[in-house]
Amino acid sequence: MINYPGGINKKHYQEKKRRIVSKNSAANRGMSLEDSINQSNEFYAEMDRALILKRPTPINVVKVDYSRGALIKEAYFEKQSTTDYNGIYKGKYIDFEAKSTHLKTSFPLNNITSHQIEHLKGVIRHGGIAFFIIEFEIQQQAFLIDAQYVITFINENKRKSIPYLDIVNNGIEIKKSYRPALLYLDAVDKMYFDKII
Amino acid sequence: MINYPGGINKKHYQEKKRRIVSKNSAANRGMSLEDSINQSNEFYAEMDRALILKRPTPINVVKVDYSRGALIKEAYFEKQSTTDYNGIYKGKYIDFEAKSTHLKTSFPLNNITSHQIEHLKGVIRHGGIAFFIIEFEIQQQAFLIDAQYVITFINENKRKSIPYLDIVNNGIEIKKSYRPALLYLDAVDKMYFDKII
Repeated sequence: MINYPGGINKKHYQEKKRRIVSKNSAANRGMSLEDSINQSNEFYAEMDRALILKRPTPINVVKVDYSRGALIKEAYFEKQSTTDYNGIYKGKYIDFEAKSTHLKTSFPLNNITSHQIEHLKGVIRHGGIAFFIIEFEIQQQAFLIDAQYVITFINENKRKSIPYLDIVNNGIEIKKSYRPALLYLDAVDKMYFDKII
Repeated sequence: MINYPGGINKKHYQEKKRRIVSKNSAANRGMSLEDSINQSNEFYAEMDRALILKRPTPINVVKVDYSRGALIKEAYFEKQSTTDYNGIYKGKYIDFEAKSTHLKTSFPLNNITSHQIEHLKGVIRHGGIAFFIIEFEIQQQAFLIDAQYVITFINENKRKSIPYLDIVNNGIEIKKSYRPALLYLDAVDKMYFDKII
């Protein structure tokens, strides 16, 4: 499914896409972060290791032509009011949001909406696992970072971005391969299941 | 969000809606099963009792006009390849599908796709809670029925529908109110959390 966040025109999108592609690692050449996660989720489902899916992009349908079998003639992409991904892994509810940045030294927090933060707080309150996958395009690195870390960072800091080094030190780098493109469940294991209590 | 399943034209849909409305109980007058569940989920979220959401209807976008801020000019509704609802309740992953029938004596199994059955089997394998909410429009009754019951019924029977009385005897009737329209988490409690072991 095509997903052009509100206000971004095609040219902008294509430029962005070309830039990402040119900087991608050999392993994931040509794959956006979203494509990498979707492919990994398919792989994990085939292996029966987890059942995690992307929520479809919400679309506001304005006009439908019923004379042609419910052809949508006018509609608009809407922003996801929650996170992009959820599902079940090792009996636990999993919920996360994935974001890329082309900045080198920090991750801008305006990439995350207040709706998403509220949603992830709710997931934590109800006993689920909540995190972000943050990709630094220049470094070609993706990290898993616990949602509670991000929530606490926002509460305790005035800065509008999380430094790259904070993410390196508090997150877990996600290894890449051909299939799955991102071995993010290994990072989930390390962060939530291998903890020494 | 408007959701016209493939092939149903507007007239058909409006007739169906009128019929449902005319038969609805006083408590839920004018609300479809989907509306009732969505309103109940909003209520449960406000009460912080659970975090359960409808997956957006997937839409296949064919043509987009970028000169007008990503206006979708041609698109089609797609069938959900999984279930309509999932989320977290009491620390457990919850996943379910809701279906109405206007038949009086049985629920036709062709309302459920093989994708949905495979998805719910996966949820059960991974330790989640999986069920159906089935509404009999004529009786104005909605039932929670465990997905494993439906899966076993399909495997062990040649019939193409589950008798109403089987659902009465093996499901839990969902009480109705003004808010939430369907007290379906009380039925979840009875079915999955109050069991005497």
